[in-house]
Amino acid sequence: MTNPTAAMLVIGDEILSGRTRDANMYYLAGELTNHGIDLKEVRVVSDDAQAIVTAVTALSGNYDHVFSSGGIGPTHDDITADCIARAFGVHLDVRDDARAILAAHYQETGKEMNAARLRMARIPEGAALIENPVSAAPGFTIRNVHVMAGVPSVFQAMVVGVLATIAGGAPLLSQTLRVDRGEGDIAEILSQVADDFADLSIGCYPFQQNGAFGANVVLRGTDGARIEAALNALVAGLQI
Amino acid sequence: MTNPTAAMLVIGDEILSGRTRDANMYYLAGELTNHGIDLKEVRVVSDDAQAIVTAVTALSGNYDHVFSSGGIGPTHDDITADCIARAFGVHLDVRDDARAILAAHYQETGKEMNAARLRMARIPEGAALIENPVSAAPGFTIRNVHVMAGVPSVFQAMVVGVLATIAGGAPLLSQTLRVDRGEGDIAEILSQVADDFADLSIGCYPFQQNGAFGANVVLRGTDGARIEAALNALVAGLQI
Repeated sequence: MTNPTAAMLVIGDEILSGRTRDANMYYLAGELTNHGIDLKEVRVVSDDAQAIVTAVTALSGNYDHVFSSGGIGPTHDDITADCIARAFGVHLDVRDDARAILAAHYQETGKEMNAARLRMARIPEGAALIENPVSAAPGFTIRNVHVMAGVPSVFQAMVVGVLATIAGGAPLLSQTLRVDRGEGDIAEILSQVADDFADLSIGCYPFQQNGAFGANVVLRGTDGARIEAALNALVAGLQI
Repeated sequence: MTNPTAAMLVIGDEILSGRTRDANMYYLAGELTNHGIDLKEVRVVSDDAQAIVTAVTALSGNYDHVFSSGGIGPTHDDITADCIARAFGVHLDVRDDARAILAAHYQETGKEMNAARLRMARIPEGAALIENPVSAAPGFTIRNVHVMAGVPSVFQAMVVGVLATIAGGAPLLSQTLRVDRGEGDIAEILSQVADDFADLSIGCYPFQQNGAFGANVVLRGTDGARIEAALNALVAGLQI
């Protein structure tokens, strides 16, 4: 059985201008790995309708799931819902269930339900709502695309909600071997073990510490016994 | 005059598995903004030849510059140079100038120049080398693609070298107005100012602090006087 595949789409000028350091990619990557879903690609695009439509269409066609973050708030630069509706050729309008969630929340918090806030109840036809336990305004899932907020606390809560509803595969396991030699000194053995264990993903990540070079070799796969065997082969080959 | 456009391609399983938190995107985004180059898209792909070739081809065709990070070391999972050569249909082999740089470095540091290390002297035909003042192994520029290392200290040094050789545009300026109201309360005024100042990019980034909602409104553009005027319009509209 192979694991489901996924892509992430990060929407926002603030990431591309260097103003904000993205936090959602790192969080989602870890959660998907734990859930047995293989994150294969991430795209970051600006608040530009054509860029969003193009990316959603491509990613939705290429992967089992797409997780998006950003652009679902009440302001003029929040155009994600419009773009998703356009990408799938479906109608977008205020939906009663979403409006009811917002109305209850604003009544409770003493805020006015104005036209801007009502925009957040606009949900593409046929979508299922994603609960927002932080600030009420829901995300939504349409086809294989899960549309979530960019604010990290809201994004994280929505990811937990979405992952509870979709089937994962075998969690990706990993072991790391730290080697205090340069990458170039271990590359040959590493290449041989990678060939012998083609079912695993074996990566080599160099570092420099106190002027000396070293590398972390990371062995990833879904079968713990195979990872163990590859680790033993590596230790034997490197005579550690 | 419009600014040159750019995309970034991050190559590496370690980012997609959630093992490593990417640091290069945030760094590059800030540097490009300062240099007057508009970063329009980022893609993160795994150490997979087809994925890398597809992404390089698409991004190279769509933007003025492509900056890549990762996959140019000595180990089996470092396949970026091969993929770039394939994407552009050019020959890839050990090149004398790159080999000389490595040979001098390894002689100086007492390391062996073995087959694995020699892989790092493989440069696509027609490429120009990018200096690596940290660990010698060079990056390279071919057509509009700048291929750099993933290790942040090396990546950063290479970016500085590349940016010195390419013409930028007007640096993107920005001003931020912090508003202690919910996004939904300022959206209407904001939308009006965004319409009146269509030459600026105006973004709204909500936050929550001590239980209260607020938003940072960021006005970006290359004309400082226009940003100032929009800021004044915003302050007047919001009666701050």
